[in-house]
Amino acid sequence: MTGIKDDGAWRENLLRIAPYVPGEQKETPTLIKLNTNENPYPPSPAVTEAIRAFHVDALRRYPVVDAGALRRTLADYCGVSAQEVFVGNGSDEVLALAFKTCFNSEKPVLFPDITYSFFPVWCRFFGIPFEEIPLSDSFRIEARAYAVPNGGVVIANPNAPTGLGEGKDFVESLLEANRDSVVIIDEAYGAFGAYSAVPLIRKYDNLLVSQTFSKSRSLAGLRLGFCFGSAELIAALDDAKNAFNSYTVSNLALEAGKAAVADDAYFREQLAKVVRTRDKTAQALRGMGFTVTESLANFLFVTRAETSARALYAYLKEHNILVRHFDRPRIENFLRITVGTDGDMDALLGKISEYTDKRGV
Amino acid sequence: MTGIKDDGAWRENLLRIAPYVPGEQKETPTLIKLNTNENPYPPSPAVTEAIRAFHVDALRRYPVVDAGALRRTLADYCGVSAQEVFVGNGSDEVLALAFKTCFNSEKPVLFPDITYSFFPVWCRFFGIPFEEIPLSDSFRIEARAYAVPNGGVVIANPNAPTGLGEGKDFVESLLEANRDSVVIIDEAYGAFGAYSAVPLIRKYDNLLVSQTFSKSRSLAGLRLGFCFGSAELIAALDDAKNAFNSYTVSNLALEAGKAAVADDAYFREQLAKVVRTRDKTAQALRGMGFTVTESLANFLFVTRAETSARALYAYLKEHNILVRHFDRPRIENFLRITVGTDGDMDALLGKISEYTDKRGV
Repeated sequence: MTGIKDDGAWRENLLRIAPYVPGEQKETPTLIKLNTNENPYPPSPAVTEAIRAFHVDALRRYPVVDAGALRRTLADYCGVSAQEVFVGNGSDEVLALAFKTCFNSEKPVLFPDITYSFFPVWCRFFGIPFEEIPLSDSFRIEARAYAVPNGGVVIANPNAPTGLGEGKDFVESLLEANRDSVVIIDEAYGAFGAYSAVPLIRKYDNLLVSQTFSKSRSLAGLRLGFCFGSAELIAALDDAKNAFNSYTVSNLALEAGKAAVADDAYFREQLAKVVRTRDKTAQALRGMGFTVTESLANFLFVTRAETSARALYAYLKEHNILVRHFDRPRIENFLRITVGTDGDMDALLGKISEYTDKRGV
Repeated sequence: MTGIKDDGAWRENLLRIAPYVPGEQKETPTLIKLNTNENPYPPSPAVTEAIRAFHVDALRRYPVVDAGALRRTLADYCGVSAQEVFVGNGSDEVLALAFKTCFNSEKPVLFPDITYSFFPVWCRFFGIPFEEIPLSDSFRIEARAYAVPNGGVVIANPNAPTGLGEGKDFVESLLEANRDSVVIIDEAYGAFGAYSAVPLIRKYDNLLVSQTFSKSRSLAGLRLGFCFGSAELIAALDDAKNAFNSYTVSNLALEAGKAAVADDAYFREQLAKVVRTRDKTAQALRGMGFTVTESLANFLFVTRAETSARALYAYLKEHNILVRHFDRPRIENFLRITVGTDGDMDALLGKISEYTDKRGV
């Protein structure tokens, strides 16, 4: 470097923030990748067709600012109006913008101590005060713990990494106790069998429900997320988006997203496959002495008292199976294992047996 | 609506912000769209090929977090290292994240009173104090006006909507006067003939230079932008990005972007066409009594004392030609006209003649 030395005063004004750490994203042909809750099946053939048929010359134009056609498609699919839908560059962007839009109180935003670890990162990024509410000993979210003054509430349902889902009664009691704050329900994993709060947006105008194309629609690489809420909340979110980046979703992603939603038969068939494999794998792991939470998501959260989760993680990685271990209080002896194909899970179970047999642990 | 009435206290904590207002994005077959500085030519055929050849099944996976391959491509193209490149979802996202990353002083960030109107919007969005420095009477940016204590400096070069570009001496004197702040040069329109400050990032580690695929590479609809800076600034920007959205650029956009950069011959040929049409159109407009700034961008900024810009805008719109009029002090009698094809410009010139002849104005 031949840079002129300065006194570096500009460094004092740089943002210093510990970012969210996603699961490793590597691709080696032999790797069984069960660490980032991706779908083991490809997207709908209709998505491939839409991308092949896409008129690439149209990319010289900006997209429509409001991603209108995809909003209408999602609205029709979910039985709401287009004014009640917001679309963004992955549900992470949707949630980040929702935090910035809805959480401007001096009171803390509340979420569980064990949940999607991006929640505290967004709060720090935007300078939003927050408080983590402990899950129960059985990792349940207790609605009454959120019946305290707050600047907002965020719940992942089903929760991650536990996989546990809460039902309509829980969500309604949470909403009844929080008429003065925006309540965000992150349903990133909702399609795999959990209760969805989307119908409640007409009853509670302070409710925002986010979903994504990444997991259930096998489109993690496309970056497409969305949320539902009252027209008033969605309008505020639109203003925030348009004060950050006018066009967050590409023309190509809009077309691919519409095609994915249209092919509902494929979607349902492939969800059912993941759910079958999940439940079968959970049963097998229980047979091997593991405690497995009742996952309603596309991953399993597993532990075994006599087995070190960290050591098992390392053993699996050594054998080309990547799962996720969180070095965090209360869950340091758990592994989060994405549901892959039946073949992936057989390989996983084989390696886990090998490990526990070898070590007698 | 059958919503339960609440007292609406949650509304008090909603962000209220006046968003950036982009040019109308409408598409009717007969419209000559000269209002959003899009390229009149399609993207490189190599982009079409890359999208056609894209293995859509790969979309089930998240992209690599750092958009590594595209960073390396851009680094090689510009003669810097990959650690000196950041990639984002359009240069608007890159700039928004750069504001959040670099401008955390209590002193105001400085930019011209007439420039890209997203600058003040980002400041309001992130709560960054700012001060607008008047352009000279001839719409030039005066470096000495920025030699005052500040929390950062942002300059678009060439500037928008004036189209005027500043050279190396200007940029270096701006940097010499601002060793204690980050200086951002937005080169969204840089490829159309202006001086680029990219080589200066090795000399000034507080310099960030942003560029985009939207204009010069005909990929506005793809959403792809990038910036160059010292490895230290880029690392800070990466942390900020990863505290907002881990994966901002889709697998598809990464592939398309690489293909666009690789086809340099097409890029240069098509830039030359836009520049030729720009200069020819400027001359024709001057011949019709318009004052036209010395644009180094892909648009013209024009005025004529005896002609109302607002009325001419409306006349052109009525005749299916969309240009941009800004209802703002100092420039309310100007129009910003994107450079289209020669045919587009002939149609434009014809309608302008018709208007001025008819009215004798």
